[in-house]
Amino acid sequence: MIAKSVIPQSVLDRFNNGELVAAVVQDVDTKEVLMMAWVNQEALEKSISTKAATFWSRSRNKLWVKGSESGNSQEVKVISFDCDSDTLLFQVKPAGPACHTGAITCFDQKII
Amino acid sequence: MIAKSVIPQSVLDRFNNGELVAAVVQDVDTKEVLMMAWVNQEALEKSISTKAATFWSRSRNKLWVKGSESGNSQEVKVISFDCDSDTLLFQVKPAGPACHTGAITCFDQKII
Repeated sequence: MIAKSVIPQSVLDRFNNGELVAAVVQDVDTKEVLMMAWVNQEALEKSISTKAATFWSRSRNKLWVKGSESGNSQEVKVISFDCDSDTLLFQVKPAGPACHTGAITCFDQKII
Repeated sequence: MIAKSVIPQSVLDRFNNGELVAAVVQDVDTKEVLMMAWVNQEALEKSISTKAATFWSRSRNKLWVKGSESGNSQEVKVISFDCDSDTLLFQVKPAGPACHTGAITCFDQKII
C-alpha cells in the first residue's frame, strides 16, 4: 500500500469517518471541467497507483474504473485536495468523451 | 421570480426532493478550478439574478454570498448543469482569492 501513504491524514479521516470525498475531474490540457464523481479510499488508492481514474459509483454501489465499459478512460496526471479535505481535483488526460451522452463534458447544458 | 424560470426542471426536482446541488467554481478566464460549494434553490436564484456567486453554507446552515465578509466576491458569468442535474459549474470572475487561506484556489495542495 505505497499509494496509501501519500494520501493526507485529513483526507483519510474523511474515509475513516465513513464519508465519500467528491472528485472534480478536469482535462489537464484544455482545463475544461469534465465531470464530478465520488471516491472512497480504495478508489483513490487505485487512481493513484494505476493512474486510471477510478471512482465509487453511488448508484451502482461499487468501484468504477472510468472507461472500463465505454473505453473512455482518464489517465490521472495530478490529484489535488482542497482546504476542507472533502473535495479532490483530478487533472486527467481523457481517452474520449467524459459523458455517457457522448459529450466531451458532462456540463454540457447552460442555465445562463 | 424571473430567475426561477430559467432553472431546468431536472435541477428544481433535486431541490424539491430536499437535496442540495454541488457547485464547482471555475475562473472563467484562467480556467482554474477554485472551489466546490453547495446551493439550494434560493442560492441558485440569487446567483442568477444578482450575478454574485451565492451558496448554501452547510456548516453555518445559511445563505452565503461569497465575499460578503472577505471582499473576495465572484461575479457569475456562466452556469452550466451536468447530465445528472446534481452538479453545477459556475464560471466566475473572482475579485480576489477563492480560499479562506488566501490562496487563489482551495485546491492548493497536491497528493500526486
